[in-house]
Amino acid sequence: MTMKKGTSLSEFRELTERYSNWSRWGKDDQRGTLNFITPARVRAAVREVRTGRAFSLAIPLDSRGPQRGLFGRFNPILLMTRDGGDAVTGAYTSDWLGGEEKETRSTDEVVVMPTQCATHWDSLAHIIHRDVMYNGRSASEVSSTGAKANGIFASRQGILGRGVLLDVARAEGRTSLDPGDGITSERLEDAADREGVRVREGDIVLVRTGHMAAARSRGDWGDYAGGPAPGLALDSLAWISERRVAAVAADTWGIEVQPHQVREVHIPFHVVALVYMGLTLGEIFDLDALAEDCASDGRYSFFLSAQPLPFTRGVASPVNPIAIK
Amino acid sequence: MTMKKGTSLSEFRELTERYSNWSRWGKDDQRGTLNFITPARVRAAVREVRTGRAFSLAIPLDSRGPQRGLFGRFNPILLMTRDGGDAVTGAYTSDWLGGEEKETRSTDEVVVMPTQCATHWDSLAHIIHRDVMYNGRSASEVSSTGAKANGIFASRQGILGRGVLLDVARAEGRTSLDPGDGITSERLEDAADREGVRVREGDIVLVRTGHMAAARSRGDWGDYAGGPAPGLALDSLAWISERRVAAVAADTWGIEVQPHQVREVHIPFHVVALVYMGLTLGEIFDLDALAEDCASDGRYSFFLSAQPLPFTRGVASPVNPIAIK
Amino acid sequence: MTMKKGTSLSEFRELTERYSNWSRWGKDDQRGTLNFITPARVRAAVREVRTGRAFSLAIPLDSRGPQRGLFGRFNPILLMTRDGGDAVTGAYTSDWLGGEEKETRSTDEVVVMPTQCATHWDSLAHIIHRDVMYNGRSASEVSSTGAKANGIFASRQGILGRGVLLDVARAEGRTSLDPGDGITSERLEDAADREGVRVREGDIVLVRTGHMAAARSRGDWGDYAGGPAPGLALDSLAWISERRVAAVAADTWGIEVQPHQVREVHIPFHVVALVYMGLTLGEIFDLDALAEDCASDGRYSFFLSAQPLPFTRGVASPVNPIAIK
Amino acid sequence: MTMKKGTSLSEFRELTERYSNWSRWGKDDQRGTLNFITPARVRAAVREVRTGRAFSLAIPLDSRGPQRGLFGRFNPILLMTRDGGDAVTGAYTSDWLGGEEKETRSTDEVVVMPTQCATHWDSLAHIIHRDVMYNGRSASEVSSTGAKANGIFASRQGILGRGVLLDVARAEGRTSLDPGDGITSERLEDAADREGVRVREGDIVLVRTGHMAAARSRGDWGDYAGGPAPGLALDSLAWISERRVAAVAADTWGIEVQPHQVREVHIPFHVVALVYMGLTLGEIFDLDALAEDCASDGRYSFFLSAQPLPFTRGVASPVNPIAIK
Repeated sequence: MTMKKGTSLSEFRELTERYSNWSRWGKDDQRGTLNFITPARVRAAVREVRTGRAFSLAIPLDSRGPQRGLFGRFNPILLMTRDGGDAVTGAYTSDWLGGEEKETRSTDEVVVMPTQCATHWDSLAHIIHRDVMYNGRSASEVSSTGAKANGIFASRQGILGRGVLLDVARAEGRTSLDPGDGITSERLEDAADREGVRVREGDIVLVRTGHMAAARSRGDWGDYAGGPAPGLALDSLAWISERRVAAVAADTWGIEVQPHQVREVHIPFHVVALVYMGLTLGEIFDLDALAEDCASDGRYSFFLSAQPLPFTRGVASPVNPIAIK
Repeated sequence: MTMKKGTSLSEFRELTERYSNWSRWGKDDQRGTLNFITPARVRAAVREVRTGRAFSLAIPLDSRGPQRGLFGRFNPILLMTRDGGDAVTGAYTSDWLGGEEKETRSTDEVVVMPTQCATHWDSLAHIIHRDVMYNGRSASEVSSTGAKANGIFASRQGILGRGVLLDVARAEGRTSLDPGDGITSERLEDAADREGVRVREGDIVLVRTGHMAAARSRGDWGDYAGGPAPGLALDSLAWISERRVAAVAADTWGIEVQPHQVREVHIPFHVVALVYMGLTLGEIFDLDALAEDCASDGRYSFFLSAQPLPFTRGVASPVNPIAIK
Repeated sequence: MTMKKGTSLSEFRELTERYSNWSRWGKDDQRGTLNFITPARVRAAVREVRTGRAFSLAIPLDSRGPQRGLFGRFNPILLMTRDGGDAVTGAYTSDWLGGEEKETRSTDEVVVMPTQCATHWDSLAHIIHRDVMYNGRSASEVSSTGAKANGIFASRQGILGRGVLLDVARAEGRTSLDPGDGITSERLEDAADREGVRVREGDIVLVRTGHMAAARSRGDWGDYAGGPAPGLALDSLAWISERRVAAVAADTWGIEVQPHQVREVHIPFHVVALVYMGLTLGEIFDLDALAEDCASDGRYSFFLSAQPLPFTRGVASPVNPIAIK
Repeated sequence: MTMKKGTSLSEFRELTERYSNWSRWGKDDQRGTLNFITPARVRAAVREVRTGRAFSLAIPLDSRGPQRGLFGRFNPILLMTRDGGDAVTGAYTSDWLGGEEKETRSTDEVVVMPTQCATHWDSLAHIIHRDVMYNGRSASEVSSTGAKANGIFASRQGILGRGVLLDVARAEGRTSLDPGDGITSERLEDAADREGVRVREGDIVLVRTGHMAAARSRGDWGDYAGGPAPGLALDSLAWISERRVAAVAADTWGIEVQPHQVREVHIPFHVVALVYMGLTLGEIFDLDALAEDCASDGRYSFFLSAQPLPFTRGVASPVNPIAIK
């Protein structure tokens, strides 16, 4: 197990150039590596389905979620507009039907939630580095009215295709990786080797560290949302880039190893991935049930359907990713 | 074209009994006709994929949506927690990073929205008839904290499988059906015949009336959200029941014909479908691009992936349904 | 110092009858003891103003407030609709002005908050006892659309008049009273005596326990929002009733002593006060600066202006009470 | 009646200099003309109280308010967290009390609202002109986290003192002034003369145009929120400045005449008042009942208590202003 800590600023600068995909798909592109997913690859991906069993990779959306206030995030708040109590007490009648008695009652609700509070995709408008975002667009394009470009709307036709689970924790014989443990290219490749799976161009790679399972087993999210965590090291970008991965997600709050590796640049993996590479990132994915199944049948590839909600100017979206094996 | 208006209360009562699926899947069942979707059928459904082209069936989520206040619903409100302006002006530094200068800036947002304000699934907890909901559960199970049973959480593993588009408008040579036009079993069957498609057990049926296209072509939602509309007549339940359809969605606000057909019972199709049959309903589905494609290649079946967000106690969920052909 | 713990259920029942004001101001009354405030008393109350100095009794409204999730409450969430960053970057122009360059920019915001999350008034619709609320109205009158009666709207003309601070902590030579310490009638009277103030009919009484000051001095709200606290004992109702107090507020989360005194009935002081007596209650009032001033000049009476926001169907309202000395 | 339309840009520039109060109260001042209100003036103001009758000047807060979406504003949304239906059906017990049966039930709610959607104060952080706000502060001080300076928090000790109603409509024998009618200094002075009232330093002036009464009489807000309206002309600033008025409010959505008078500068009165003069502005004040009373007793001065909620970084606040005569 190798892990390179303390990347210097100049080394980091070099990475932003080496992995940049700016203009690769045209100067107006807003989708980045999702361009690796073609209809032909989607067609091929559905052939991964053997049993038809589906696995939801989303955590439940309610007040018991992991958020503790960091970055102003909070757990989903669901508030009823009409409920069964209104029906039973008769309040419904005068409230909604103008006093005319009827037999039918409906229920409705409003949700208030940060789009990144639970299982979600980060769009390419989520990170700004030195005032620019993916494809060289100005930070000013994300104003109080949201993202005019690079946002989640660019992927509204779906983030779907062949999914591969790299269960790094299990491959390395661990229940969960330790906070601060940065996953390198070599370890990703090793995990794939042990699983007997090959990652191909356009795949969506799900990296399991066991960090969510650890929270689950202690029965408390604790500092899951923002504390030290295992995750992808900057070094892993070589493998991701070479394999032409379309998107990467993990079972942690922030996908990359925390604390991170560059003193001068906050969340450096996010910067290289989202701003330069144009790689859409998924976070807080619950991979445990899927991992259990993959371990039992030895198949780590599947069809993944993980479409975001089409917020016109959203920088992210909650998602209920479904893996079908 | 036949359409039965003015169903009497006793005829309506008879329908609630005839189509009831209470206890069919056990007295604790909360999924209703989604039980028709089995892993085997999902496995078969992916074989519908030929080109790998994906079609999002969701309308954009923003303030320009169709809601006009009926039933307390409003269009999505997206509010930024951190944006590009904060990065450019330098405000970000002191707000979020404790005054320590860094290169990385992130953006974030909060959404406030009724779960039924745009493209969505109604769960079996959405409608209450005479104080009960699907499978005989008490209306009291939907309180101010949401649905303790029958809610959208019961379908978190995905509403996915073989989808069939019944483009009734096009099949009948119309641009759009007229408001008040109730679609019968016979017309659904006729549409399938003309399209050369056969609906099978466990299919998800998408009914296109052209009503959304009409709003689009006039450039104004108008009374789309709650006004008179074409839609499913009570008579269509025979066909839906016989074919063992898993879920039905349409391109209208309320799926059923408006004004509806029973004087004494508000939205009677919803009542029979959601409360008695246990049929999950989809509304405000944008079927126009998909319909265009189906008309051009003559194939009206596809793989549909339309998973709701897993609100633990939600009565509905916004959804971005993806049809893959 | 006497404190009666362990009131029995039958003793409690007796209190609900003894202090009931149902029908005292007519069967349609929704204002309860606020009826003690008459124009003549308001006129007299302004004569309490000697220096013209004003003291805000509200805690700041922001994410650093005391709420920790109990009863689904959270601290205020303020989200900008338009901000200065939009102005500086130029985003404002295209977002709001249709591309036409102008010199003027405006800022705007949305707040999401429980009405009881910070300094607030509880209306008479806040508590329900055995399915009824003040003046015998049915619990059903508070539905998903809010309070049809007894709500905060009934006091929209203002909760204002002569205010009296009873600084019980200071009167008893304490920095703060201990959690669990229940304040009796005798102790309220003693505090008034030591302060040299006399409480009159129609006064608004502010009771200071020092519990907020304790949180402030330890620099952490801790369990302020819902934990054990000093506060009014059931016994204090005799004094409140006899003096014909119009409203009572305190520097704690829940005004009454916690843990409370009746095993079978949750928050019994709230029940007698709000449901039977019709006494509007104020909570999370910051009385510290005012108390300091009163101690220094020896005057504990003042003009108090503490109008709620007129939510048509609200059960409570945030308030910025102003004491003018 | 004189009204100067078509102020040139150079004339406008001259006004921003002539009426500037930057540095008048120190370079760190954030309160502007509220500094005219001193304890001595508050003490004098309470002497205006003769009968003790109070008038709320706030419109009701609910979904029937005037907002129609302009500038992203919407009417208040009140959503119940716990209600009477939960009590009656028994749902409350399991939801909130852990299954232990008790007699007490409480109700609670969450409000979602723009702070400027109904009766409100604009703080000095509400308007930015050429990237600066009051006292020369940078627009950057209003970021996604709100106003770091000049915000509504600066007036948390209350906006209160002597209030004077200038019922311009009535003084001129009109039911309501016409949209587009700009009120000049001369007309304000004339109204005061006819009313027999003299405006003094530190007064809060309420200007009644009859525009809200017009909406009320037609039973529909129509374009009240943002359409053409009568209101203060730039010319009125001379009188406001000379009289050292502390704050100004009106019965319109935007206080100033609409359409406004300077081609190149949007809402020019706001700019001079808020950015240069530092004059806090109140909008959507309901002055009709108060006006009726003033007309009947001939007294147009009173004590006004109109404290904002202390949003730490708010740019505005809803308010329930109370006039006491």
